[in-house]
Amino acid sequence: MAKIDLNSDLGEAFGRYSLGRDSEIIPLVSSVNIACGYHAGDPDVMATTVKLAEAAGVGIGAHPGFPDLQGFGRRKMDMKPDQVQHMVTYQVGALQAFTSDKRLHHVKPHGALYNAAATDHELAVGICRGIYQVDPKLPIYGLANSELIKAAQEIGLPYAQEAFGDRNYNADGTLVSRSLPNAVIKDPQEVAKRVAAMVNDQEIIALDGTKIPLKPDSICVHGDNQAALDIVKELHVGLNDAGIEIKTF
Amino acid sequence: MAKIDLNSDLGEAFGRYSLGRDSEIIPLVSSVNIACGYHAGDPDVMATTVKLAEAAGVGIGAHPGFPDLQGFGRRKMDMKPDQVQHMVTYQVGALQAFTSDKRLHHVKPHGALYNAAATDHELAVGICRGIYQVDPKLPIYGLANSELIKAAQEIGLPYAQEAFGDRNYNADGTLVSRSLPNAVIKDPQEVAKRVAAMVNDQEIIALDGTKIPLKPDSICVHGDNQAALDIVKELHVGLNDAGIEIKTF
Amino acid sequence: MAKIDLNSDLGEAFGRYSLGRDSEIIPLVSSVNIACGYHAGDPDVMATTVKLAEAAGVGIGAHPGFPDLQGFGRRKMDMKPDQVQHMVTYQVGALQAFTSDKRLHHVKPHGALYNAAATDHELAVGICRGIYQVDPKLPIYGLANSELIKAAQEIGLPYAQEAFGDRNYNADGTLVSRSLPNAVIKDPQEVAKRVAAMVNDQEIIALDGTKIPLKPDSICVHGDNQAALDIVKELHVGLNDAGIEIKTF
Amino acid sequence: MAKIDLNSDLGEAFGRYSLGRDSEIIPLVSSVNIACGYHAGDPDVMATTVKLAEAAGVGIGAHPGFPDLQGFGRRKMDMKPDQVQHMVTYQVGALQAFTSDKRLHHVKPHGALYNAAATDHELAVGICRGIYQVDPKLPIYGLANSELIKAAQEIGLPYAQEAFGDRNYNADGTLVSRSLPNAVIKDPQEVAKRVAAMVNDQEIIALDGTKIPLKPDSICVHGDNQAALDIVKELHVGLNDAGIEIKTF
Repeated sequence: MAKIDLNSDLGEAFGRYSLGRDSEIIPLVSSVNIACGYHAGDPDVMATTVKLAEAAGVGIGAHPGFPDLQGFGRRKMDMKPDQVQHMVTYQVGALQAFTSDKRLHHVKPHGALYNAAATDHELAVGICRGIYQVDPKLPIYGLANSELIKAAQEIGLPYAQEAFGDRNYNADGTLVSRSLPNAVIKDPQEVAKRVAAMVNDQEIIALDGTKIPLKPDSICVHGDNQAALDIVKELHVGLNDAGIEIKTF
Repeated sequence: MAKIDLNSDLGEAFGRYSLGRDSEIIPLVSSVNIACGYHAGDPDVMATTVKLAEAAGVGIGAHPGFPDLQGFGRRKMDMKPDQVQHMVTYQVGALQAFTSDKRLHHVKPHGALYNAAATDHELAVGICRGIYQVDPKLPIYGLANSELIKAAQEIGLPYAQEAFGDRNYNADGTLVSRSLPNAVIKDPQEVAKRVAAMVNDQEIIALDGTKIPLKPDSICVHGDNQAALDIVKELHVGLNDAGIEIKTF
Repeated sequence: MAKIDLNSDLGEAFGRYSLGRDSEIIPLVSSVNIACGYHAGDPDVMATTVKLAEAAGVGIGAHPGFPDLQGFGRRKMDMKPDQVQHMVTYQVGALQAFTSDKRLHHVKPHGALYNAAATDHELAVGICRGIYQVDPKLPIYGLANSELIKAAQEIGLPYAQEAFGDRNYNADGTLVSRSLPNAVIKDPQEVAKRVAAMVNDQEIIALDGTKIPLKPDSICVHGDNQAALDIVKELHVGLNDAGIEIKTF
Repeated sequence: MAKIDLNSDLGEAFGRYSLGRDSEIIPLVSSVNIACGYHAGDPDVMATTVKLAEAAGVGIGAHPGFPDLQGFGRRKMDMKPDQVQHMVTYQVGALQAFTSDKRLHHVKPHGALYNAAATDHELAVGICRGIYQVDPKLPIYGLANSELIKAAQEIGLPYAQEAFGDRNYNADGTLVSRSLPNAVIKDPQEVAKRVAAMVNDQEIIALDGTKIPLKPDSICVHGDNQAALDIVKELHVGLNDAGIEIKTF
């Protein structure tokens, strides 16, 4: 039976501030990426979120980001590769300490760090080295076919190729920029259909019709608001109908 | 042969800012407390300092503090015990991730956190729980006979009783406040004599003459400046002369 | 015609995080306290909030707090009076720069800073000096009859005596602690009645029946949620019925 | 008599951390740029440094930077122009509040913000707008002939063209990157000769011999260490010998 991992960001609250619908998205996914206090989250939120994730039995990943709470880790910072390496080690180690068995399922970089690592090889290597320092067997989630995946292969770090069901792709396998009108697919049924096709055909069709070979291990979904949750619910049904199991990578 | 651990704070630089004489103090001590980025230190400094300490073969401890870089962790913050617990888990986990074997030798709270935990039982329990979460066998260094030691006993966490060779004591075993003129002993030979006496007699004489029973496992020393280093050098010689071995707890 | 100022906290969002119902509370009050980036708020939020307040024509106050985003300025920090003084000057200056005429209507300390200053004279003097440095004619809002008011009198800083319509008072004029069950009055009509009585009788009746002389210049109201807004709406009607005008201090 | 302004960064200490030789550089310059707490400095340091500068009678400038203490404002952050605008208003307002007459002499962006604004027009406009909001008559110091100067002209903000005596120039008027071996001129007499030539000839000779028209209003000098101070002392003598007065812009 074909299977696919669904992952979602979690634990992005901070102090007095709430964010996201953690308890509603968690039953719909198989793995979660928990913020580590640099772009969002704090030690109290991390403790609570790890407990929630352990109770749900999903794969727990660290979600390290740039040290920029105000910018929510979405503003690229020109950090040197070894600075990136160390801040990834720091954040991954901090989150791991909250788990019951001191073991994580994966690491997924956040926001601008994830995006930059898709094309910047040196930065990508820095991230992978930061994870390797904590645990050489700890997999990284990266954009399928990106520099982050290549860096993991180079370092010898396990990895999961990630794809997006609700985003259009360019012919070169990168995502259509969110600044363009057709970046995001909002129709839940269309998203479900695309994901099922990715899993079954191991390719995705770019905006210009190009067929991009793609073997996704995990699909990124969102739980920020009702519309996002509706898409994930539809995706659940759609994958089930297509005979695809939602299961941790 | 009698023995005693000497511990010192390390890795309290931050970004562009230097602090302390890490490379000079490290050969003189048997264990070190490395800042974790909350009151001082950053991921780059932590990576460098852990390497330095591993090369020297000293016991590596985490040195968690209040989240207050500007105040260097010396300003008490009214945090709830569970907030303290989580921030300790966070900092200890972050530092541990930089070590080669993912194992620490001990944890010693910093500054206002250390001082507050000497008398505030709930806070002390919060700290101990934060360490226990990371590793139930990871010892805490606390002021001898203080609430922090009692909390460790209560939780079942290993501990080391810490004493100060360069500080005068009150009759109740607390340190004479730094705001008083006779708080600190500056004569290196006097410090060496006091430490040897503590180790051999397992008691310390308070300012008013009271004999306080004290079985120190570790002595705190400083490497901030030349005067502090001179004291530690004299202490080295003095302990050697007294037939006391300087050795990790 | 009798009159009273109603003030409310504003601009406590931060980066990606929303908080409060700024646009709904603003038409109901005569003055606002805008967060300055230390406990909440950021430069973008401050710019937006000052514009909103200027458009509404309310009195714009700075709302400085402890440097503790995670704790929302609600955790007391042991800062020295001159440290408090400087951080108040910093925050007040930062907010003032966003106004059209570089002039503020008042300053109201936030959270733990406000509460501590009600009883700690040295801290209260530090706050007043910090404001005085920016503008010796800039009034401070403080708990009526508290040390903060005394400090303002001592320094020669203008002040407004603040009272709470939705809080019970102790016989000594302090607020009943929020940790006690009868701290907060939730019935909107009761709140309206109390405020009208305070304005007309210039006294408030403590929980034990003691009459506390109190000449309130401003009443603190909240806009965090629907229940809070409902109270303010009822208060509006109640004050109107009692012939009391809602007007800036 | 020809004259030139010498400016230097000041107040870049932070909390427990010292940096720079503020008291030694200040008698040698005519204007100073004081850090505002984002890349360095804190309210206590700002209060002390403003007093020092006022006592010395030098022109006091705000020195705003990216919100990155760990990176000392030297790591570019991808902030939107309006975010830059607001953070500049914030920092300039905060520093201005510490002065006796609530007036600054100038603003000079720091580190990566300064460098990025030399070539990024939108960013440069954001900075200028941030200053204009505080005071439309407050001059900005920018790299001579750069986008920052053009933005100031566009906005109607006064400006000073800044040049570097100890840096080599490319033919297009930009500075030779610090990553190249011949970026910095270390011979104090050579620096003095170059500055005198710039002032007298209103041009500077690039590395490849190109003559770049340049009418410098201010020269940037450093006081970080003894070597830097020695250069400034030599420059003082050299300018005096050349009959050029060191005077605030």
